[in-house]
Amino acid sequence: MREKHDMDIEQYFIKDDLIPAIIQSVETREVLMLAYMNRESLQRTLETGYTWFYSRSRQELWNKGATSGNVQKVLRISPDCDSDALLIEVWQTGPACHTGNMSCFYQRGSLFNGVEEP
Amino acid sequence: MREKHDMDIEQYFIKDDLIPAIIQSVETREVLMLAYMNRESLQRTLETGYTWFYSRSRQELWNKGATSGNVQKVLRISPDCDSDALLIEVWQTGPACHTGNMSCFYQRGSLFNGVEEP
Repeated sequence: MREKHDMDIEQYFIKDDLIPAIIQSVETREVLMLAYMNRESLQRTLETGYTWFYSRSRQELWNKGATSGNVQKVLRISPDCDSDALLIEVWQTGPACHTGNMSCFYQRGSLFNGVEEP
Repeated sequence: MREKHDMDIEQYFIKDDLIPAIIQSVETREVLMLAYMNRESLQRTLETGYTWFYSRSRQELWNKGATSGNVQKVLRISPDCDSDALLIEVWQTGPACHTGNMSCFYQRGSLFNGVEEP
């Protein structure tokens, strides 16, 4: 299924051993969550086509959806201009958030909510 | 213009003095960039309605677009489920990336590019 991926991932871990990964739904364009990857979790994501992250609190790798079934199949991984963030577009099965909400950002506008025009 | 904002921002800085902020275009739903906020930059963003960040390399606050004119007017700020990431929806003036690209994630799929079907 993979058409291209660059296995030289060291460039994404120059500043830090962890890189933040933004997960966005292919279908709705909604931002679903932010999680962190270390080299091994990025490598596993590239190899399997499903997201793997590194939990800072548990200090271990985790495969998103391994217990809940709410997996994320990867369409595309795009690095940012200075190689210190990743945008990962996925097909999300079920809700992305452990609260049962589709997105972890479900408290929409709770910190700031402006008007719907520029 | 602001309808609501919660000034109790300390809850977003419990784990770390910096919180990652995902910037998404209101109009295109494109993810434009990821940057970091400390307490002061989040406070200034809430007060002004335009994005302010904290530069880890320069160790200073910066107002996005202050020199380029490519400012980000904030529509909505949404915290994630465990209060350690922010999603900020903005009206972006001009390109968001210093390279002149609309998004900092312009190297689309350069790390992984799957097929366009689930």
